[in-house]
Amino acid sequence: MADKKMWGGRFSGGTAASMEAYSESVSFDWRLYAEDILGSQAHARMLARQGFLTDDEAVRICDGLDAVRAEIEAGEFVWKTGHEDVHMNIESRLTELIGPLGGKLHTARSRNDQVALDFRLHVAARLAAWQERLAALIKVYADRADEHRDTLLPGCTHFQPAQPVSLAHHLLAYCQMFRRDHERLADCLKRVRVMPLGAAALAGTTHPVDPAFVAQQLGMEAVFANSMDAVADRDFVLEAVFAGSVVMTHLSRMCEEIIIWANPNFGYVRLPDGYSTGSSIMPQKKNPDSCEIMRGKTGRVVGSLMGLLVLVKGLPMTYNRDMQEDKEPFFDADRTVTASLEIMAGLLRELEFVPERMLAAVERGFLNATELADYLAARGLPFREAHHITGAAVGYAESKGVRLEDLSLDEMRRFSALIDEDVYGVLDYRAAVRRRNMPGGTGPQSVAGQITALRTWLGSAG
Amino acid sequence: MADKKMWGGRFSGGTAASMEAYSESVSFDWRLYAEDILGSQAHARMLARQGFLTDDEAVRICDGLDAVRAEIEAGEFVWKTGHEDVHMNIESRLTELIGPLGGKLHTARSRNDQVALDFRLHVAARLAAWQERLAALIKVYADRADEHRDTLLPGCTHFQPAQPVSLAHHLLAYCQMFRRDHERLADCLKRVRVMPLGAAALAGTTHPVDPAFVAQQLGMEAVFANSMDAVADRDFVLEAVFAGSVVMTHLSRMCEEIIIWANPNFGYVRLPDGYSTGSSIMPQKKNPDSCEIMRGKTGRVVGSLMGLLVLVKGLPMTYNRDMQEDKEPFFDADRTVTASLEIMAGLLRELEFVPERMLAAVERGFLNATELADYLAARGLPFREAHHITGAAVGYAESKGVRLEDLSLDEMRRFSALIDEDVYGVLDYRAAVRRRNMPGGTGPQSVAGQITALRTWLGSAG
Amino acid sequence: MADKKMWGGRFSGGTAASMEAYSESVSFDWRLYAEDILGSQAHARMLARQGFLTDDEAVRICDGLDAVRAEIEAGEFVWKTGHEDVHMNIESRLTELIGPLGGKLHTARSRNDQVALDFRLHVAARLAAWQERLAALIKVYADRADEHRDTLLPGCTHFQPAQPVSLAHHLLAYCQMFRRDHERLADCLKRVRVMPLGAAALAGTTHPVDPAFVAQQLGMEAVFANSMDAVADRDFVLEAVFAGSVVMTHLSRMCEEIIIWANPNFGYVRLPDGYSTGSSIMPQKKNPDSCEIMRGKTGRVVGSLMGLLVLVKGLPMTYNRDMQEDKEPFFDADRTVTASLEIMAGLLRELEFVPERMLAAVERGFLNATELADYLAARGLPFREAHHITGAAVGYAESKGVRLEDLSLDEMRRFSALIDEDVYGVLDYRAAVRRRNMPGGTGPQSVAGQITALRTWLGSAG
Amino acid sequence: MADKKMWGGRFSGGTAASMEAYSESVSFDWRLYAEDILGSQAHARMLARQGFLTDDEAVRICDGLDAVRAEIEAGEFVWKTGHEDVHMNIESRLTELIGPLGGKLHTARSRNDQVALDFRLHVAARLAAWQERLAALIKVYADRADEHRDTLLPGCTHFQPAQPVSLAHHLLAYCQMFRRDHERLADCLKRVRVMPLGAAALAGTTHPVDPAFVAQQLGMEAVFANSMDAVADRDFVLEAVFAGSVVMTHLSRMCEEIIIWANPNFGYVRLPDGYSTGSSIMPQKKNPDSCEIMRGKTGRVVGSLMGLLVLVKGLPMTYNRDMQEDKEPFFDADRTVTASLEIMAGLLRELEFVPERMLAAVERGFLNATELADYLAARGLPFREAHHITGAAVGYAESKGVRLEDLSLDEMRRFSALIDEDVYGVLDYRAAVRRRNMPGGTGPQSVAGQITALRTWLGSAG
Repeated sequence: MADKKMWGGRFSGGTAASMEAYSESVSFDWRLYAEDILGSQAHARMLARQGFLTDDEAVRICDGLDAVRAEIEAGEFVWKTGHEDVHMNIESRLTELIGPLGGKLHTARSRNDQVALDFRLHVAARLAAWQERLAALIKVYADRADEHRDTLLPGCTHFQPAQPVSLAHHLLAYCQMFRRDHERLADCLKRVRVMPLGAAALAGTTHPVDPAFVAQQLGMEAVFANSMDAVADRDFVLEAVFAGSVVMTHLSRMCEEIIIWANPNFGYVRLPDGYSTGSSIMPQKKNPDSCEIMRGKTGRVVGSLMGLLVLVKGLPMTYNRDMQEDKEPFFDADRTVTASLEIMAGLLRELEFVPERMLAAVERGFLNATELADYLAARGLPFREAHHITGAAVGYAESKGVRLEDLSLDEMRRFSALIDEDVYGVLDYRAAVRRRNMPGGTGPQSVAGQITALRTWLGSAG
Repeated sequence: MADKKMWGGRFSGGTAASMEAYSESVSFDWRLYAEDILGSQAHARMLARQGFLTDDEAVRICDGLDAVRAEIEAGEFVWKTGHEDVHMNIESRLTELIGPLGGKLHTARSRNDQVALDFRLHVAARLAAWQERLAALIKVYADRADEHRDTLLPGCTHFQPAQPVSLAHHLLAYCQMFRRDHERLADCLKRVRVMPLGAAALAGTTHPVDPAFVAQQLGMEAVFANSMDAVADRDFVLEAVFAGSVVMTHLSRMCEEIIIWANPNFGYVRLPDGYSTGSSIMPQKKNPDSCEIMRGKTGRVVGSLMGLLVLVKGLPMTYNRDMQEDKEPFFDADRTVTASLEIMAGLLRELEFVPERMLAAVERGFLNATELADYLAARGLPFREAHHITGAAVGYAESKGVRLEDLSLDEMRRFSALIDEDVYGVLDYRAAVRRRNMPGGTGPQSVAGQITALRTWLGSAG
Repeated sequence: MADKKMWGGRFSGGTAASMEAYSESVSFDWRLYAEDILGSQAHARMLARQGFLTDDEAVRICDGLDAVRAEIEAGEFVWKTGHEDVHMNIESRLTELIGPLGGKLHTARSRNDQVALDFRLHVAARLAAWQERLAALIKVYADRADEHRDTLLPGCTHFQPAQPVSLAHHLLAYCQMFRRDHERLADCLKRVRVMPLGAAALAGTTHPVDPAFVAQQLGMEAVFANSMDAVADRDFVLEAVFAGSVVMTHLSRMCEEIIIWANPNFGYVRLPDGYSTGSSIMPQKKNPDSCEIMRGKTGRVVGSLMGLLVLVKGLPMTYNRDMQEDKEPFFDADRTVTASLEIMAGLLRELEFVPERMLAAVERGFLNATELADYLAARGLPFREAHHITGAAVGYAESKGVRLEDLSLDEMRRFSALIDEDVYGVLDYRAAVRRRNMPGGTGPQSVAGQITALRTWLGSAG
Repeated sequence: MADKKMWGGRFSGGTAASMEAYSESVSFDWRLYAEDILGSQAHARMLARQGFLTDDEAVRICDGLDAVRAEIEAGEFVWKTGHEDVHMNIESRLTELIGPLGGKLHTARSRNDQVALDFRLHVAARLAAWQERLAALIKVYADRADEHRDTLLPGCTHFQPAQPVSLAHHLLAYCQMFRRDHERLADCLKRVRVMPLGAAALAGTTHPVDPAFVAQQLGMEAVFANSMDAVADRDFVLEAVFAGSVVMTHLSRMCEEIIIWANPNFGYVRLPDGYSTGSSIMPQKKNPDSCEIMRGKTGRVVGSLMGLLVLVKGLPMTYNRDMQEDKEPFFDADRTVTASLEIMAGLLRELEFVPERMLAAVERGFLNATELADYLAARGLPFREAHHITGAAVGYAESKGVRLEDLSLDEMRRFSALIDEDVYGVLDYRAAVRRRNMPGGTGPQSVAGQITALRTWLGSAG
């Protein structure tokens, strides 16, 4: 096997079999085949422009690479572990197809800058795909919010009911999280779309190449500024997997809520069959598996991030083979993030909300206590005093087993003479929500504005 | 104690002593005092503009807060654990100083949005400070690079000497890492500088406040779009500590290099006394403690990031007290990143490079092998063949115990008849470096251009 | 300052001020003072036994160290950052007190083995303290379980009600977790209690010391087998913080349950005032802060573990100054684990369970479906078929809005002719629990047996 | 598809296609097939003993399961994603082979306890395999140490040469690390080998099963004590992956050393061809890829541990589907740890040490300074003073460019009149090593003792 290796010239012994399996990467980096071919075609065109290849040679190389891609996509390509990685597999097949000309493709290029280019192109493509899925998910959220502008549920802090909010407002909070994710990915992409070709092994090339031409062909935004950094940098993977980890923590929060809401004690939602499962022994159960698995997969992406941070810690310049381990964590994170965003969109689209259970919870929780405190404060009491009086009134109502609004005016006025008949309007839950119409609040105009703003943004971001 | 608590109205039992210690935050969040006061002053001015306070009341509140700050900064302020956090400590003292008017400051504000504001202001200030330190460090790197344009050392891949590079080029690779950090922080700051005040507890406020005015006063770039997200979001801390983790991984790479370079087998550097220590038992030793500690502290910041990701996983909406645990990891990361950037700048300024040891390593390592391969390729050999021939020549020279350039032309030509007398010029190490003058390469013009570009950027970024 | 440093002999320049602050450890490792003194006293006695000190000298050293400890514990000791660490601070003060004899204590000892010894003694003491707290917590759990042998609640899988269990059984599940923690700590302690003194800097000492004597004096179980490993090993800290992380994940599960149970939709528990807090704006709320903070602090300990794993990755032999960063993560984890175990014990002791809410949930959830399936299986149906029939019956009852036991026998028999009148006894929830009396099941005899076994174990483990 | 699902009875809608792919586990948990079959066979025998099956039925079930295993191992088994997991795939095929009798196997068993059993059996088998590989690796280390009892190299602290040690001693330090790993695994196995069958879904079974019989058949050491814990516990996976993480950190330290030692500036080792690779552009390079990849893979296992800790944080009782995500991290960690231990053993067996380069480094580093300090201390100087004098002598020699032993006696005595002619014997490097013969030291007798002790232990541990 060793004699077929590109670097085998000076080696007398062969590679140990266990080492062959340990060090090969083609079993996972074949995923980069499309980017490898695109990158090589752009490189070939540049070589022709700069006079290293004739135009005809460039065409033959590009056609040969098209043929290789066709073989791969038809499932006819034979991947060889002995060729170590996707790059050598493709180059080797290209040379079989078009002869020694294939070797010229390696002019002014090294595996170090080639692998960096391919991986950057791949990460860029995947992050753009994440952005699309985020936009699609935000759209579903906004649509469901639109349906539930008038549905009230307890807004919680400390997981205790605090104030009534509309379900629309609750769902729109998630839209803000996912929009931030979308924007974070856009920022990340600026640092992913940097063209490393021309850095060669580490010191730059002696050939008068034109990296800007290659960059422009491949949709990259910038060209490397220092060749050693170009082959040593994996920040872009760290940043991508971090962004994916944050996406997953957002999804994990929604999953947690759906799982709890599906418990009969809450009963806020009914799970769609397509995203639930049953029990092998308890036939009455309908389990929120999709949300549980997604919550669990959060750890998986965070684990990949941690693995990458351990990986790069303390690595001296420049490329070290440790860095081969950068790909699988990204591939795994990509699969997880992509599928999770799709599953959540599908689930949310079909999730059945149960407004009457939500409203029952609103009415049980003294969720208009803040309204009474605000009412008293508006009549001139210092806020802290208004708060103490309200606390006393709540305690009284609770001990009687009634709601605040069930107290008579006389009972109310025992706590403060500032209270008048109009307090009952103030204690109305829907009125409480309506009053919070400042931008960003739970009031219906604010909510309508949020939905409009998101749809406008989706129009321009999509 | 409980009767002094703001929320104590309805509680009959006191807080357990162990719980008091477990849940207080003032022992660490006192660090937010400046931002708490700034935020409250901006809030007071806004309340006056909107008619909730008279101008005179606003002035008295602002003056009172100035007085509190003066007490804190003079070390005369008595922090009380019973007041739980920085916010209650300051408000309580304010009320002592200016009377019940202090209570009015809580109009249209909750602790949930107040703590979010304070922490965002603090993180923003610290990230800006990190940016300054990064710029200062880049400046030192660029200056040292400027001194060592002509110093050659082996550029390594796999930690094996590969090709000669200038020390300038090597140092400038780090400049690119730190510049990316600077830019990543700028992106992060867009998401930190979002004004949450007006979200109140979670549902928004009923008062006609003016969040944009507060935001503008405090240098925030945007106002919250959804009140529930405003109090539930801690993405900005995750992102800040992630950015800090990447900074530390970059520093850890430099530390690793300095530690190895200081070993006598390398001898590439002599450590400055100010950043080294000795041994209690081995008097001849000079230890790179600063770099070791810094490399070790990388784990500390990564650990904080991990802790934060665990923290937010699966939290339901909105504010949960778990989130109190967001501050210490950031404070600790801030201390570490800030000090590490300063130490590295100080160390690098005084670090003595030893060019002769670097050059000796260059000459020992067949670092001109690539030159020979390129020479042959330029004469028309397919690159892979040129590479095989070069490998054979290196093997021959190694077995004779000489350098490539020590071989006679006859010996050379045994490997390929394409080799001529001019090969010796090509094998010259400095010539090899000079030839790599493409933008981003190790050649002197490229290096000069990199330094100029960095200084220009520093001028505009600083 | 540098001239006071032990290793300052060969240094001409002083330490940079920023470096002084960066590298000192006394601000945190002062916590090791008791172990440092114990270790030095054992070392002094050994030196006397081996003839390096007279008995009188050893006594004077031990008395001097007692005096230093008394100063520290009286708050009169002046810690000096310039003396770097706890070890130099104590040795320096000892020499002030007893003169040059203090210097003899360093015979056959280096800071490397000394710090390893002190830290091992400290970790051992703290893990033993964790074990005590775990035992105390298990006792509280067992006592509360004993009170609630007859309280039923829905046992959940997928957070969906599955089968009725007793609250006792549910609480006893946690006892098993904490008992495993206790045993894991016992295993860990075997690897903590290894005596490193005599390894000196790294190569062992030339003096005929008696490490076994020192080990025996200090309660260590073994003596180091290789001096380089003795000063390079920090596995024991990793293992301790891992054990603490697992403790915290167990606590986080209980916290999650209490937080959800305290939500009015569940209402399974009423929180004790001593471990709850209120809201500054919503007077009716009672928040499970203790559980939220504890759940949040889980991340903190996991973060420390992560930091330590990053720290040790890739460190060459033997001691590297990076390892100074091993202490703060442990100290922080120790504070968190210790306080959390105490808080949970206190909270659980006072937590009020609400059996009627739990029972109501049992009756609402078709929790006897499994009983029906088992009933049919016992009458000869293959289990899978019994399961399908039960599923159909549940669907029918659900559509009628009744419980399974509310169906008439005629209705039942439409699903299977195997069903007889005795099915109603089988569907009784308490009977269902009673039937599960196999060891480890939720039946009352099993539960009684579990409690007895735990109390027996506590008697022997305590 | 849904109608084929075991729990499909009550579901009207089918499973979404994306959800099918998201939630299936058979693509990875097929690895548990052998344990699933073993567990089922033991369960069947127990059912027969307890009278739930006739002996003949048990035999038919066991034979049927043997047939299924044979199909799997012959590659003829058709795994169906629609059957979700390994358990349903096997049960379904069993029922095809032996008819409805297959369904009886599910008596007194649920998927929850079945999956726990299978996974515990699998983890136990793998940890035992790790132990074997650790023992094999220790054997190689001990053998190489035996060859190099007389090879000296600089023992480092702070990666600075400190004192000479034998290469044997250096290698034996790693043996202690791996032996601790072996013992940690033994402790872990006690908690893995706990039999959960009989816990059923969560509450225990109503059938008079005999878990102890099943446990004994399967080599388990204990039986579950609480059924809810039995199905909710995943501590054993956390502990296993933690133990694997520590193994990897140990390997990463050795990898770091080999990588540095292979750099020409050190030249302490020559890499075996079978575990190295070359460069595609620099023919003279020989890269320590195996060590780089292994160092990088450390992050991978640590990442898996972190992912698992995120996973279990905050999960309420009992089984949650999140826990399905426990398997892939373990499988991946297992592959990595297993292969890494094998690769390191193979590499180390063939690694060529270069004693002359090591010795040259010893002679260059004032590695006998400690000897001089000890010499002076033995003549009555307080250690701290001896240390200062030695530091001055080293400084003098360094300034002259000579070794300590090159100074004349007159020159020496300028630093202390206590120095005599016999100092030169003391300064001899080999003598310095010989003097450290206390147990655990680098002296030759100590080293011989360490090797003997390890071989004895290997004899009993293997």
